[in-house]
Amino acid sequence: MRLYVGLVHYPVYNKHHERIASAVTTFDLHDLSRLARTYGVKRLFVVTPLEDQRELAGRVVTHWTSGYGATYNPNRKEALDLISVCATIDECVRDVEEVEGERPLVVSTDASVKRPDVLGYSEAAAMVRAGRLLLLLFGTAWGLEEEVFERTDCFLDPIKTHTDYNHLSVRSAAAIILDRLAGGHPGGS
Amino acid sequence: MRLYVGLVHYPVYNKHHERIASAVTTFDLHDLSRLARTYGVKRLFVVTPLEDQRELAGRVVTHWTSGYGATYNPNRKEALDLISVCATIDECVRDVEEVEGERPLVVSTDASVKRPDVLGYSEAAAMVRAGRLLLLLFGTAWGLEEEVFERTDCFLDPIKTHTDYNHLSVRSAAAIILDRLAGGHPGGS
Repeated sequence: MRLYVGLVHYPVYNKHHERIASAVTTFDLHDLSRLARTYGVKRLFVVTPLEDQRELAGRVVTHWTSGYGATYNPNRKEALDLISVCATIDECVRDVEEVEGERPLVVSTDASVKRPDVLGYSEAAAMVRAGRLLLLLFGTAWGLEEEVFERTDCFLDPIKTHTDYNHLSVRSAAAIILDRLAGGHPGGS
Repeated sequence: MRLYVGLVHYPVYNKHHERIASAVTTFDLHDLSRLARTYGVKRLFVVTPLEDQRELAGRVVTHWTSGYGATYNPNRKEALDLISVCATIDECVRDVEEVEGERPLVVSTDASVKRPDVLGYSEAAAMVRAGRLLLLLFGTAWGLEEEVFERTDCFLDPIKTHTDYNHLSVRSAAAIILDRLAGGHPGGS
């Protein structure tokens, strides 16, 4: 499995559909790194161009990977060890390329993408199983901004349920999507 | 679908396997209520015997359902409206019984339950689809304490992946489990 995940804080939308850089949420770092470790993700990139936010994320990671937290909770260390803090999506792509020797397929997630060429879950899970190199992008705040889509090779099908409600947190959405792509649970892909 | 969810703060384990009442985490209320709304859960019970914690949970719910938050973000209102704050698991069961006219099957979740009679995901999803009345319990902190199991009719199979890591947040675990039970996604149950 060669799956990488990027948690994107810029460019994303705010409530008013304006382009912003969102704040790093420490809950995201914990939940997503534990999730990434559970599903065998190779690296979790935390993407923000804001230096103070990169510092904050770095401080959290250091606390749990080499500070007091590492002794207090070694399981947490194992998860947070997966985090790399990056300034841009391009930087993540380059980092993956350097490690893997090839460019990853960049797959964006979006709660309401209306495109004909979306990647279904069975197809995406088959790619993961086949060892295809993927970088899966999740947007914080109100989701990935249009500009990200220009760097995107394909879009993952939005999570649809039998209700009309479509407002999951990025933490919930990432958990559901990683389980669908890399869970291999009975009856699932 | 007649699925109810309980987020249990007592009795649960702490890191040292001692029985505690954990603190209510506002992130849990938001993530789990949005998740519950997305998957058509009928009610999300927040269970804690601590009065100040019930007050805190109640204040958060009121802010988003009838306070400023309700106007600021109506989607959030729709989710938080699903929350009921209860003192005990028995109280949740009684509440469900009152609404539905029958006792729910109480299903506990646990990251490492070692019992022969666990309920698999396909079976559990089939029960949900068939309209069986279920109350699904999630433990906060280090998980549901043994005493809860005496009130439990069955246990859901722990989330297993291809890695040996088994330390998801309750937010992630709940997202994955609800998707498996009520998601009905292609290739899933």
